[in-house]
Amino acid sequence: MKLMQVTDPENVFAIINENFAFLESEKIALERSGSRCLAEAIYSPENVPDFNRSTVDGYAVTARDTFGAGEGMPAMLEYAGEILMGQAAPSINSGECWLVHTGGMLPAEADAVIMIEDTELTGTMLQSFRQVAPGDNVIHRGEDLKMGDPLLFPGHRLRAPEIGMLASLGITELNVHRKPVVGFFSSGDELVDYSKETLETGKIRDSNAPALLYLSEQKETLVKYGGILPDHYETFLEKSRSMLEEVDMLVFTGGSSVGSRDYTARTMQELGEPGLLVEGISVQPGKPTLLASCKGKPVLGLPGHPVSALNIFDIFGGAIIKRLSGLAGKEFIPTVKAVLARNISSRSGRTDYVRIKLEDADHGLSAVPIFGRSGMLRTLAEADGLLTVPASKEGLSAGEQVEIRIWE
Amino acid sequence: MKLMQVTDPENVFAIINENFAFLESEKIALERSGSRCLAEAIYSPENVPDFNRSTVDGYAVTARDTFGAGEGMPAMLEYAGEILMGQAAPSINSGECWLVHTGGMLPAEADAVIMIEDTELTGTMLQSFRQVAPGDNVIHRGEDLKMGDPLLFPGHRLRAPEIGMLASLGITELNVHRKPVVGFFSSGDELVDYSKETLETGKIRDSNAPALLYLSEQKETLVKYGGILPDHYETFLEKSRSMLEEVDMLVFTGGSSVGSRDYTARTMQELGEPGLLVEGISVQPGKPTLLASCKGKPVLGLPGHPVSALNIFDIFGGAIIKRLSGLAGKEFIPTVKAVLARNISSRSGRTDYVRIKLEDADHGLSAVPIFGRSGMLRTLAEADGLLTVPASKEGLSAGEQVEIRIWE
Repeated sequence: MKLMQVTDPENVFAIINENFAFLESEKIALERSGSRCLAEAIYSPENVPDFNRSTVDGYAVTARDTFGAGEGMPAMLEYAGEILMGQAAPSINSGECWLVHTGGMLPAEADAVIMIEDTELTGTMLQSFRQVAPGDNVIHRGEDLKMGDPLLFPGHRLRAPEIGMLASLGITELNVHRKPVVGFFSSGDELVDYSKETLETGKIRDSNAPALLYLSEQKETLVKYGGILPDHYETFLEKSRSMLEEVDMLVFTGGSSVGSRDYTARTMQELGEPGLLVEGISVQPGKPTLLASCKGKPVLGLPGHPVSALNIFDIFGGAIIKRLSGLAGKEFIPTVKAVLARNISSRSGRTDYVRIKLEDADHGLSAVPIFGRSGMLRTLAEADGLLTVPASKEGLSAGEQVEIRIWE
Repeated sequence: MKLMQVTDPENVFAIINENFAFLESEKIALERSGSRCLAEAIYSPENVPDFNRSTVDGYAVTARDTFGAGEGMPAMLEYAGEILMGQAAPSINSGECWLVHTGGMLPAEADAVIMIEDTELTGTMLQSFRQVAPGDNVIHRGEDLKMGDPLLFPGHRLRAPEIGMLASLGITELNVHRKPVVGFFSSGDELVDYSKETLETGKIRDSNAPALLYLSEQKETLVKYGGILPDHYETFLEKSRSMLEEVDMLVFTGGSSVGSRDYTARTMQELGEPGLLVEGISVQPGKPTLLASCKGKPVLGLPGHPVSALNIFDIFGGAIIKRLSGLAGKEFIPTVKAVLARNISSRSGRTDYVRIKLEDADHGLSAVPIFGRSGMLRTLAEADGLLTVPASKEGLSAGEQVEIRIWE
């Protein structure tokens, strides 16, 4: 029996980045651009704000008119009127003040704003019980964004703050990378569609397809489902070939038996050059994972066990999707800190993903490992997340601080 | 001038849970149920698997036929044939073995599977070089899910593992809580729609609306945008009243000036009992936040400054949305660990949210605070996430371990 060549997770990530390119770009409306990655650099076309604005409700003044003012000796200013929101500010004369609202425009000659609570208005005479320095309570023209400044670079993922920033500049369209279209096939003659109410003996429902389709959509892809492939090689190959034409990435699930695994591997070699890149990953669960590049498109063969399939798609499928989506730069993986409740044994040289249930404890959170075969979905549904035991370790001890990656 | 009554963040969360109820439930197809919260308990209607299955490629046997077998003294078994995937298994006689594939059905009398690599087949005679114990390499009927077992409880949020588990049971429809419909208004006479190319003096673009709408959609809501409300109380009230009829939650943004803030507060009192619940939160930025309950619906008044508006909507708006969505039980907030690069000062009694840029450092990640006024979107777009300085602290020191909540 041929031994499986396994690849380290880090090498798999490197192979992904070497073999697959960003998808092409498309023009998209700003309000539809959230979570997409920029395919262009953005420079500020304007100054933001485009005029000096007040940061408080108060009186716009020339700062030197208030110098020396204090609790016992107010500065006296002539009240010239109110600047309404959204209106161009009039000019200010020496010794005058204008009422301005938060965000409102300042007269060109005003260089500070006195907060309303530091003043007292009697008729048209304003007493200021505090002195202000030039710039106090003012956002200057271009202070947020200066015309011509580089703001965002290609590969930057757009979040709410970026959408707000671009909106403030009147940018309504952007070039972003296309959303990957991911095609899914299940395989195995024992599988029937999950909607099948009554099962014949020996059959099981295809539970991977709906779970993976949802996970893929959560990762900002469009999905296509090709159904259950029969254990018949010509059909398997034919259907895969025509699906590959329509998608940016192809995923096979099921086929954990040697037979279906062979079909998947053979298909990967047939679909296009260079074919198979990875024929196993040194992880547990999920070792019998296949990855190929066919005509420049990634083809991923997931192990059939549901826990392995979801794990591997989340971690390695997720990395492929990010690559296709055009993400550049560093990515942070947030975790929840907890204290390990039991010893975990692990084989050195293999990265282990351990399902964890988080429970309240005196010291914060306790990470309770859930043991169970990788075929058991219940163990994953009970888990809050995964603990990674790195390949360099031979297990972890109860009481150790660990970081849990939460299942979204 | 009336002093603002501020409420602690923890009390705001408590007020949210006391005042707002889960939305009603609806029946939904399993494949559309991801991220929804269950409105019913789910019990297993079947055994999963419904038959004993092999976890490996190998030979199904009666374990006692292999007792005593070893490298030098193989057990001899009669090869009876292959059990194809998806087919009902035949019965097994003493001394016989059947070839089974991973996931395949075992004969009722077989109680173990010998891995294929521990055997050698010559004609119809199989030599097993290892003994197996009853249960070896077998998943038993009902081992994953037993008929009648409680699986999931009301308020449980459905993720990919739950979708897979329910699919394996043939469950195609579920009762889940409705998605909240969130209505948004901007306000302030200085605002114009962000798509406006050329700005008149004194005007600024409404950058909050597109950023908040995206953030709300990310939080699994449906959104409605009502446009920019004028600084005219009767129109403000009228439009708010009619929007409230159509949504489950209403959000006002802008109006950081005392005038618009007053309109928002007055509107909240007018829209329905009990009206205003929170008229300020002891946080920075975001203190001038308003929260009301009107006819059982939450109405949130965000500060106008973009950074504050996004912060507050993310944290407190997010808590309201989770409540309406029917989420029960604990929620984990994953963070990224880093070492603080500079001292941060903070006022005791106030919770501070500090924008953080994460940078690579020798020790891992360095958390660099981004200072800048809360009106400046650039400072948020540059940030990877937020650091919370709790109310009990008077700042944090450079070199401290901190946890950063990443902006998605």
